[in-house]
Amino acid sequence: MMARQRWVLGLIVALSAVWLSQADEGMWLFNNPPKKQLKEKYGFDITPQWLEHLQKSSVRLGAGGSGSFVSPDGLVMTNHHVASDALQKVSTAEKNYMRDGFHARTREEEIKCPDQEIDVLMSIEDVTERVNAAVKPGMDPAAAQKARQGAINEIEKESKEKTGLHSEVVTLYQGGQYHLYRYKRYDDVRLVFAPETAIAFFGGDPDNFEYPRYCLDVAFFRVYENGKPAKVDHYLRWSKDGVKEGDLTFVSGHPGRTERLNTVAHLEFIRDVDMPTRLNVIRRREIALKTYSDRSLENERRARDDLFSVQNSRKARLGMLAGLQDPAIMSRKREEEAALREAVAKDPELRKNYGDAWDQIAQALKDYREIFLEHYVLEFGGIGTGFNSELFAIAKRLVRLAEEKTKPNAERLPEYSEARLEALRQSILSEAPIYEDLEIVRLSDSLSMMMEFLGADHEVVQKVLAGKSPQHRAAQLVNGTRLRDLTVRKQLLDGGLSAIEASDDPMIVLARTVDPAARRVRKVYEGKVQEPLRQGYAKISKALFAIKGTSIYPDATFTLRLAYGPVLGYMENGKKIPPYTVIGGLYQHAENHGWKEPFDPPQRWKDRKGKLDLNTPFNFVSTADIIGGNSGSPVVNTKGEVVGLIFDGNIYSLVLNYAYTDELARAVSVDARAILEALRKVYDAEELAKELTGGK
Amino acid sequence: MMARQRWVLGLIVALSAVWLSQADEGMWLFNNPPKKQLKEKYGFDITPQWLEHLQKSSVRLGAGGSGSFVSPDGLVMTNHHVASDALQKVSTAEKNYMRDGFHARTREEEIKCPDQEIDVLMSIEDVTERVNAAVKPGMDPAAAQKARQGAINEIEKESKEKTGLHSEVVTLYQGGQYHLYRYKRYDDVRLVFAPETAIAFFGGDPDNFEYPRYCLDVAFFRVYENGKPAKVDHYLRWSKDGVKEGDLTFVSGHPGRTERLNTVAHLEFIRDVDMPTRLNVIRRREIALKTYSDRSLENERRARDDLFSVQNSRKARLGMLAGLQDPAIMSRKREEEAALREAVAKDPELRKNYGDAWDQIAQALKDYREIFLEHYVLEFGGIGTGFNSELFAIAKRLVRLAEEKTKPNAERLPEYSEARLEALRQSILSEAPIYEDLEIVRLSDSLSMMMEFLGADHEVVQKVLAGKSPQHRAAQLVNGTRLRDLTVRKQLLDGGLSAIEASDDPMIVLARTVDPAARRVRKVYEGKVQEPLRQGYAKISKALFAIKGTSIYPDATFTLRLAYGPVLGYMENGKKIPPYTVIGGLYQHAENHGWKEPFDPPQRWKDRKGKLDLNTPFNFVSTADIIGGNSGSPVVNTKGEVVGLIFDGNIYSLVLNYAYTDELARAVSVDARAILEALRKVYDAEELAKELTGGK
Repeated sequence: MMARQRWVLGLIVALSAVWLSQADEGMWLFNNPPKKQLKEKYGFDITPQWLEHLQKSSVRLGAGGSGSFVSPDGLVMTNHHVASDALQKVSTAEKNYMRDGFHARTREEEIKCPDQEIDVLMSIEDVTERVNAAVKPGMDPAAAQKARQGAINEIEKESKEKTGLHSEVVTLYQGGQYHLYRYKRYDDVRLVFAPETAIAFFGGDPDNFEYPRYCLDVAFFRVYENGKPAKVDHYLRWSKDGVKEGDLTFVSGHPGRTERLNTVAHLEFIRDVDMPTRLNVIRRREIALKTYSDRSLENERRARDDLFSVQNSRKARLGMLAGLQDPAIMSRKREEEAALREAVAKDPELRKNYGDAWDQIAQALKDYREIFLEHYVLEFGGIGTGFNSELFAIAKRLVRLAEEKTKPNAERLPEYSEARLEALRQSILSEAPIYEDLEIVRLSDSLSMMMEFLGADHEVVQKVLAGKSPQHRAAQLVNGTRLRDLTVRKQLLDGGLSAIEASDDPMIVLARTVDPAARRVRKVYEGKVQEPLRQGYAKISKALFAIKGTSIYPDATFTLRLAYGPVLGYMENGKKIPPYTVIGGLYQHAENHGWKEPFDPPQRWKDRKGKLDLNTPFNFVSTADIIGGNSGSPVVNTKGEVVGLIFDGNIYSLVLNYAYTDELARAVSVDARAILEALRKVYDAEELAKELTGGK
Repeated sequence: MMARQRWVLGLIVALSAVWLSQADEGMWLFNNPPKKQLKEKYGFDITPQWLEHLQKSSVRLGAGGSGSFVSPDGLVMTNHHVASDALQKVSTAEKNYMRDGFHARTREEEIKCPDQEIDVLMSIEDVTERVNAAVKPGMDPAAAQKARQGAINEIEKESKEKTGLHSEVVTLYQGGQYHLYRYKRYDDVRLVFAPETAIAFFGGDPDNFEYPRYCLDVAFFRVYENGKPAKVDHYLRWSKDGVKEGDLTFVSGHPGRTERLNTVAHLEFIRDVDMPTRLNVIRRREIALKTYSDRSLENERRARDDLFSVQNSRKARLGMLAGLQDPAIMSRKREEEAALREAVAKDPELRKNYGDAWDQIAQALKDYREIFLEHYVLEFGGIGTGFNSELFAIAKRLVRLAEEKTKPNAERLPEYSEARLEALRQSILSEAPIYEDLEIVRLSDSLSMMMEFLGADHEVVQKVLAGKSPQHRAAQLVNGTRLRDLTVRKQLLDGGLSAIEASDDPMIVLARTVDPAARRVRKVYEGKVQEPLRQGYAKISKALFAIKGTSIYPDATFTLRLAYGPVLGYMENGKKIPPYTVIGGLYQHAENHGWKEPFDPPQRWKDRKGKLDLNTPFNFVSTADIIGGNSGSPVVNTKGEVVGLIFDGNIYSLVLNYAYTDELARAVSVDARAILEALRKVYDAEELAKELTGGK
């Protein structure tokens, strides 16, 4: 599955787009679409109206996925596995919506989801000049980083104040361009429908990233405004006929991160340092969660979404690492890099301005190695992987926010800038359940990892453990903190710096204790790694613009992109894999696996088998260029009608992180026809089917 | 579960025995039993006859566990999880004895098990002087190591030639003493009875190393001589009455490795380097096997025993690491070390002879760090963890054997010495099934790990991968080799060096290619790590003998030991955990977990519930000092009668690797009464029950 990969370092542009031109490559900007390619290869004229409609019908889900409006009443379609964060949070020991599914038969039954936000991209503005103007010639990297971040914080704040819209400056082409994205944000999001996990994720981890598939990976939310279903101007209509092999389709969604322009040195860094460390951490988390889950049914329920998420990451990252460990891919990358460097070297102007980019990047990565583990453990993602605990994350945000708020906006860490405060406040005051036993399992494992990665004698480790074993310390912290109580969080949030400084809550004390060291390593990271990488890659991007023009797409940034390609099967080990599966195949696949979990469909699907049209197309593959974060993206035909719903890529698609290929790599979708068939014949959700089809 | 931990580095003596005297501590040598302790604390007089009978009734299983003769007709009792290697090897896609159990109703139905050997310890001889005499003053460590190993190879060869018995020189007290153990070896071992995994390992990984428990972890083999059941003079009789809380019991078995005398520097090395690396490898193997298993029922069957084994290791090692990461345990170790060093420092003679031991060990570990990964990947266990493949292991043994056989016995690597050739030949010609798909999964994962651990540019890595990705290379090797064919192996085995050198089998070529580098790192390891450690620890042991006398027990060495202690419950989080569970508790535990695998007992147990006496004691705990390798050990009463069968330790027992404690740590056994009850009422195995009870 392809929910956004939150851990990817991610940087970079589509060099490949330059060398490969016939393939359906590209995650295109809505303000720089592949007009020419579509016209030439498919004779399709893309119009501004067509684009605007698709853009404003597409949504981004805060939890890390994509979706679309599919009715004028704010109905949002996405994947079950994108909705699983929400399903987990609204489930209890008594009502397990994750396992059993959910269906609101009336609007009154729709359940409000904590922490769930849905964004719609309303406008894009190029602010490159203003951002770049903040950096004065001769500034050292740390000063340049600070100045640039300050300008971005200010642009976002101004925009928010002026328009009321959630505003984000997006770094595109690794710093080649900066665009201001304005989103209409819905934060009253309610759950309408979700099937059982056993059919949404039929085949489970074994079938994840595989094909053929038989998954009804769909869920529906509805956005509300002022307590009523929101009326939306743009939504996608349901296709009556669906698509067939060869038909051109489009995907509008939010690919998370690609790293296609990474230099070879950077890819080697990922292969040798970054990915092995992350996989080590992912594996230990997977096993810690799995052993916790296996101890009781209630544990299993509590850890379900976390466990899915790490298993998904593990499978995705193993695929990426396999790509990096494949000499064939690395030599292709080496050749591409050599060709570009040669082109730059040949032109005196380019050489002078951009010729040192590769060495600059290599040096930054060398410096990164020095602090990699410390940064990773203490500050990665703003929290640090050494503290795998919701309660610690809340404490750290409270501690930092109190300090950051005393600074001018331009000088703050970006995630504490004015434009982000509202979302931050919501996350701190989230009503999502926190389970102490699970917190202890997660925290003790990550503290043990910290001891392993930094060494038992490391000053921070000694302070964090305070003379206890990781297990004892985790139990002490989790049992001792009062941060599970929302009123306590609110007091600390509203009390500002003095409240934080006066607190004796052990988790707050811990966050306070760790913060100076975490800030220190972050500063080194920003000055010696992040900024030099940004500068180096901006040079490479500019060199590319100079050589090839700007009609190229930037690497993915979890912002809205357009991808395209036909429905198309492929050859695997000499065998043709057809593009479609049908509902009947579900039962056959279950039979082949002895109807054993995770190949055991829900009882309802067994009972209703006779009612279903077993020839209904169930899942299909296409060549569209997608990656994690595209989960839940609508697949539309040339008329802009829904024909499917992206939910995965096959195993060969994992390499798309580094390079596009359409030989074997495929995007995997739920067919829109299967969604209707299931709603009507398995779930008796006629009213929902009607809403989708406009009453038909 | 506690099958021998094959990966433990293991070295060292029982310092704790010196400081703690009242607890039931100790894994005692049969030629140096705890006479005084038993007399003083329990008023029990241990006699030479009692000891000899127990010794010769006890057996060691090659696969890494313990057992005992329980009838005059060579019937051997051990754990199901010790027998699982054999069960795996005799199972096929059609006959899954691992899952379904096995019961030979007649002797003709008993199944011969490939690779299964059973050893009975017949005599012990102290050869310390002769081994030490080989090392001349002034020899450097590498020369000393070689001379000592040469003497050992010769002693073993002589003994084997003289007595026909399998002969092993055991290094005790880390080099303080060397004893020659002579075993009668049975290599015609047949499977008599095994229950279903679902009851043998009820609760699975979640309940592993936990208590209370409800497992029928028992299996029976029979040893044959000349095609007939062997007649044995010594076997254990079945207790009529069993034991109750407080009764003294004895455990006679083969604890694998303990590391109780490790210096603090050594424990830190394990905590910081050794254990994290191994856990990283264990976790990746667990996940690779689990994802393979989950893809089909047949895959699950094929990987069952491997998967169990890594899960068991993971849980055990996490427990050990938790001990090492606990400052309480480390400070106790620091205090003990300081006390001993002070005692040595005070005595001029001791100081002169042994005072430098701790620094010598610290230096050896420093040197070990330098080569740790290379040694681990290329040569650990004589094969190298980078080559996780049965076919590669066969190739490497063939390649090495051909070369080693050209050398005089005294100069060979120990595992290729004359006394070991017979067993080696058997392992190379084993008929155990090898599954190509599973081999590819294991090998590609370990080659990927090799690339990660040694670096993509490492000379050996480049040679091993030969320009391919780990996945492609693994597939190429496994699909290309002809070593699955026993006749090919036999030709290479009999053809000697010329056949090996002429072979173009890709796996043989690989083993040949890697061997020089593997031998190089092994030589460094032996000279700079193994020998200095041995010398250092021999000094510490001698210092201990000098200060405390020789009535102490050596660290575990997978050789026969006697442990003792009463059946005894314990307090956990303020709650009394009773020493016994009863059969009725099984059904309650299943109910609490929704009868979901691995908490779902076999159908047979559900059907026969009404026939069973639900109050029959099922599992019990005692304070006996045991560790991995003790699995399958008989538990006997003071009359030497079977009252139970060791199969596990509780979670608190994992720390016994480093230090004994009887506060919470307990050995876990199947009660002999439950075995009889189940044989009679669940399995209709009356003839077996009769054989156990002497016809009663």
